[in-house]
Formats: sequence, C-alpha cells, structure tokens
Amino acid sequence: MNTTDSIKGAPLPSIRRLPQYLQLLRQMQTKGRIAVSCTHLADDLGFTSTQVRKDLAVTGIIGKPKVGYITEELIASIENFLGWNNYSDAFLVGVGNMGNALLGYDDFRLHGLNIVAAFDANPEKIGKNVHNCEIFALDKMYELAERMHIQIGILTVPAAAAQSVASEMVLAGIRAIWNFSPIALEVPDSIIVENVRLYSSLAVLTSRLANTNK
Amino acid sequence: MNTTDSIKGAPLPSIRRLPQYLQLLRQMQTKGRIAVSCTHLADDLGFTSTQVRKDLAVTGIIGKPKVGYITEELIASIENFLGWNNYSDAFLVGVGNMGNALLGYDDFRLHGLNIVAAFDANPEKIGKNVHNCEIFALDKMYELAERMHIQIGILTVPAAAAQSVASEMVLAGIRAIWNFSPIALEVPDSIIVENVRLYSSLAVLTSRLANTNK
Repeated sequence: MNTTDSIKGAPLPSIRRLPQYLQLLRQMQTKGRIAVSCTHLADDLGFTSTQVRKDLAVTGIIGKPKVGYITEELIASIENFLGWNNYSDAFLVGVGNMGNALLGYDDFRLHGLNIVAAFDANPEKIGKNVHNCEIFALDKMYELAERMHIQIGILTVPAAAAQSVASEMVLAGIRAIWNFSPIALEVPDSIIVENVRLYSSLAVLTSRLANTNK
Repeated sequence: MNTTDSIKGAPLPSIRRLPQYLQLLRQMQTKGRIAVSCTHLADDLGFTSTQVRKDLAVTGIIGKPKVGYITEELIASIENFLGWNNYSDAFLVGVGNMGNALLGYDDFRLHGLNIVAAFDANPEKIGKNVHNCEIFALDKMYELAERMHIQIGILTVPAAAAQSVASEMVLAGIRAIWNFSPIALEVPDSIIVENVRLYSSLAVLTSRLANTNK
C-alpha cells in the first residue's frame, strides 16, 4: 500500500506537482484569467508542456485545442482529485517543535486540511491552546476521533514514541497518517502512511554538496 | 542540476534511504554489534536484501561473504558519502513557525548539520535567541556568510519572500539551499536546491484517502 508509486494509475511525481499548479492557477484566477494554456503553465513552472498536459490529465481533465483549460474548471478538477474541494478534519499528535510549527500554518485549509485538535503526553501542555487549537490528553483521542469522524492523523511525536502512537491512531479509527517522525511505521495494509522524511531530504542536499566539493 | 534523479550514478531513492540505515546502524553499534548482514538490515527495515546491498554499494562499500559489513566501517562509509562525517555549518533565514521548529531540532548535528546563525526581516526578532541560536538582521548575512565560510542556507521564509531571499543567499556565497517554501526557486545552475514540499506530501496523502473513500 505504502510502497506503490502510483494511485489508480496516476504517477506519484505528477500528484506531487499538482499543488504547484493549483497555487499558480489560484493566483491567475485572482487576476481574472479565465483560460490558460499548457504552454503558459509550463513556462511559469519550468516544466515542458507535454509534462503539464500529462500531469493535469491525471485529474481527468482534457484541455481544449486553441483554448487550453478554463481556469475555474481546472482548479476544480485538481481540487477534486486531491480531495481538497472540502477540507478534511485532522488530529495532530505531539505538540513539540514540529507540531507547534504545523499548528501555526495558516494555509493548510487551502490545501484541504483542518487541524481540529492536538494531543500530547505531557500533562503540562494539556488544556492549553496553541495557535487556537486545544491540546488534549492522548487518551482522549479514541473518544474524540470516533465522535468527530476523524480520518487523518498527523504524527509529530519523537522517534521513540512514534510506533506506539501510530498504533493508537489506528485503534482510534484513523485511516491516513502523515508521519513526520523518522520511523518506518508498522501499520495494517489498509492504513495510508505518507512519510515526511526531513533527513532523507537533507541527505540529498549534503551528498550533492559533498560531491561537488570533492 | 535540480532535476537529476541521481548523484554521480547514485540513484536518489537509495540516497534518501541512507539516513534510515545510519539510524539503525548507530543503534546496533550502541548495543555492541560489530558486524551486520544485509539480511538483518533488510528484515529490520522492511526492504529486500538485494535492495540493501544496492543501496549501500552507492557509498562505495562492498559486504564480505559470510560476514556482511563491519558496523563501524559501514557507518563511516555512509557518513562519508553523505558528508555527515563532519557537520557543516548552516544559516537559517526566516524565524517563523517552521524556522523555529528547525532551530529546536536537537539531532541535526547527528545528520551533518549545524545551524550557527538565524536571520529575520522582523526588527523585533533581531538580537533574540531561539533555541540558543542568535537572530540577526538579514543584511548581516553577506558579511557573516563570508567570514564563516557558510555553504548551506535553510530557507524558511513565507512564499512571497522566498525568491528574493534565495537570490540574496546566492549573492552571499551560499551554494546549497534547503528550501522549505512552496516556491520553485530560480537560481544559477551551480547552486544546489533541495525542496521540502509539504504540500506535495499532503497531496499524496489526501488523494490516496480520497481514492479509497470513492
């Protein structure tokens, strides 16, 4: 499940680029642009127009000859594919440095995500508000997840706690985990896990630099 | 430069997995383990042993029949490849939510990175210390980067400021930018850019969930 490199035939690299298209298209829409061509999008984003056509086709939309795409339709098509036409409520567990940072992100709602409650194991944090989000004790997660029909859990606990908290998320009925810990989580196949591996990204940066310095 | 999918023949997916091997190997070393086999690493990380052999070969090391790898040699080989045998000093620009979080990461030093100074455009933040790191005015970056021979810049400013700050980093002599903004930076070909695209990761998570819900 977590190792596939496509979703129903849509290649992951294309999906990963969709937020960039969406951001640009929203800017264009604000400026009153009604239609947009592949070439224009390609120029602005530094992609080829073949790539743009292929990426956007993933969402099910086909451009019209000479017109391109109707901006509004294209935005709706991307948002629909990503599940960002409505935002999904999410829980965040672990209000440390990264958890704090994510709670402060104003524009997650523009990207389909609404963090409705946070959880932490530290009794001193419980009951406090961080960026307008209340922090609850970890053992409240089950009850609240069920009552609020939460499907997405954001995991920002330290490495040592990551697996046990992930297992608790699964027991609480959470179906998709956005994992910011460096741990490879063991969860049932039906659970979606997306890992944000900061150290993997850093490894690419520093090995490139080490290679040019050699 | 930024679109290559390998570094001197080493595939990026292998490089991205190296921090996971390193983390596990360091744990094993702490426990006194002198040698380790591909199969053992594969079992612990959920990879195949062929994959493990291929990933580790990227760093130039070859396992010995029946012995596997000497733990210490393998760690050194990975650290050397990633440039993590010594840590590199880095500047962080933009002490907002994400900047704050990264300054609080204790274990960047274990991953080759040492943030020595932070910069912000907000006069109220200048002169303050965040997680033991002093915040300077943005226009001090040139002088300090030169004096301290800084090669790595961590970009955590808002989207609207990202391109101009990146350009200033380049002028200040920074050669590798770890970009946390959602912007595709325009920099000279010789500059290394590694993008941490949170919204791309979120797009994969939510589109998977949207697809299973349909």
